[in-house]
Amino acid sequence: MRLLFTVFALSVAFSLHAQTRPMPTTHPKYIRTANGFLMVLRPGDNVLHELEQLAIKEQIPSASFTGFGFVHPTFGFWNPAKKDYDPKAFRDTELASMTGSIAWKDDKPALHVHGVVTDKNFTAYGGHILALEVGTGSVEITIVVQPQRLVREVDESTGAAVLGL
Amino acid sequence: MRLLFTVFALSVAFSLHAQTRPMPTTHPKYIRTANGFLMVLRPGDNVLHELEQLAIKEQIPSASFTGFGFVHPTFGFWNPAKKDYDPKAFRDTELASMTGSIAWKDDKPALHVHGVVTDKNFTAYGGHILALEVGTGSVEITIVVQPQRLVREVDESTGAAVLGL
Amino acid sequence: MRLLFTVFALSVAFSLHAQTRPMPTTHPKYIRTANGFLMVLRPGDNVLHELEQLAIKEQIPSASFTGFGFVHPTFGFWNPAKKDYDPKAFRDTELASMTGSIAWKDDKPALHVHGVVTDKNFTAYGGHILALEVGTGSVEITIVVQPQRLVREVDESTGAAVLGL
Repeated sequence: MRLLFTVFALSVAFSLHAQTRPMPTTHPKYIRTANGFLMVLRPGDNVLHELEQLAIKEQIPSASFTGFGFVHPTFGFWNPAKKDYDPKAFRDTELASMTGSIAWKDDKPALHVHGVVTDKNFTAYGGHILALEVGTGSVEITIVVQPQRLVREVDESTGAAVLGL
Repeated sequence: MRLLFTVFALSVAFSLHAQTRPMPTTHPKYIRTANGFLMVLRPGDNVLHELEQLAIKEQIPSASFTGFGFVHPTFGFWNPAKKDYDPKAFRDTELASMTGSIAWKDDKPALHVHGVVTDKNFTAYGGHILALEVGTGSVEITIVVQPQRLVREVDESTGAAVLGL
Repeated sequence: MRLLFTVFALSVAFSLHAQTRPMPTTHPKYIRTANGFLMVLRPGDNVLHELEQLAIKEQIPSASFTGFGFVHPTFGFWNPAKKDYDPKAFRDTELASMTGSIAWKDDKPALHVHGVVTDKNFTAYGGHILALEVGTGSVEITIVVQPQRLVREVDESTGAAVLGL
C-alpha cells in the first residue's frame, strides 16, 4: 500500500514538473529531402562529425553538399615536404561558402570539404577544411545523395586521397 | 463614314508601326527545371527581391540555391552589442559564389544568403548578403526546391534567425 | 612446328609479363548520377576542356555545377574600355569554391565559370575563370543536368554573354 502511494505521489510530482518546466527543445539535426538531406547545425556542433554520423546512420553511398553559416574553422594547406597539412585556425567568421563530398575509406566515412570564410572586415580566407565548429549562429547544409558507393584512394604520385570513380 | 476611315487609317498606321519598330524584348526571369528553377537576372535587378517574388508566385515550401554573376553587393557582419549588422557596400564586383536558402517567417519569404565577391585585383570579400543588385552583366541562380514548408525561428540565445527543421 | 612453338613461347612470355607488371590504371573522368554527372579530374587535366567534352559526348542540353579541388587558375576581370578580360594567373592554389553553368553558343558548348581560390597563407582570390588546370591533387565537380537546351546570347548593352531563358 505504501509502495502504491509512493508510485502515485511520484507520478503526480513528475506530471506537475513536466507541466511547469518546459521540456528542453530538441532540434532534429537533419531532415530527408527529395534528393538527399537538409542539415541545420547549432552553436558548438562539430560540422565534420555530424556529416560523418549522417553518412553512417543513413548509409549514404556517396554525396555532394554545399553549405553556409557562422563558424570557427581550421584550414590546412598541404605541405609536400612534411607530407601533412600546415593548419591555421580562425574564430567568429561567416562561412560564405562550403563545398564538399562524402565517400568511404576503410569502411569509414571519408569527407573532403573546402570553404571560404569572412571576418568582420569582410576579408575572405579559406581552403581545405580540417575542423569546423558552429559559432554563434547556425550552419545550413544541403546534401545530394548519389546511388554509387564511392571510395577514396591515395594517389601515390601526389599523396592526395582522390575520389575513385 | 469619316469615322470608319479614321479607324482604318489608324489600323494601317499601327500595323506599319508594329512591323518597322521591334517590340521591346522581354526576358523571362526564370524557368522551371527538373527539380526547381533556373533564374537569370539582368543589370539593375534586385536579386533578393526577385527570389522573394519567386517564392511567393511559385509557392515554394523551401529551397536551397547557388549562384554567380556580376554585382553591387552590401554585406553585413553581426554586431552582438548593437544586435544588428554592421554593413559595407561594394560596387562592380564579380559574384564568385553565392549560397542560400528560401524559407518562411510570419507568412513572408525569409531568405538567408551568403556570398563571395572579387574586385579588379581579384581580391575576395564577402559574408552575409544584406542587398544585391545585378551590375553590368548577369546573375545566374540554380534553385532546388524541397517539399517541406520550413520556417525561420529566432534563437533566443544568439538572436540569429535559424532554419527550423 | 617451329611456328607453333614460337606462338606458345610468346603466349607464356606475355602471360608472365601481364602478371608481374600491373596494367596502367585508367581512371574514368566521370560517372552518371541520379540527376547528372560526377566528374573527378587529376593533375594536368584541363577542367574547362573536360567539361566541354562532357557536354558534347553526353549531349547535355544545359547544366549547373559546383566543384572544388587543387588548381592552377587564370582569372579575368572585364575591362569595358578594352572590351576584353584583364587576366591574372595563379599557381598551386586550393579551389575553395567553383560555381558554373553549361549552355550552347553557335552549336558549341559555352561555359560560364566563377571560382574562389586560396594560397598557402589562406588568403582568398577569385572571379571569372578563363583557364583552370588541375594541380597536385584533384578536382571534384557535381553536374546537375536540366532538360532545356539553353543558348548564350550577347547582351548589346553590356557586351556580356547572357544565358537566354
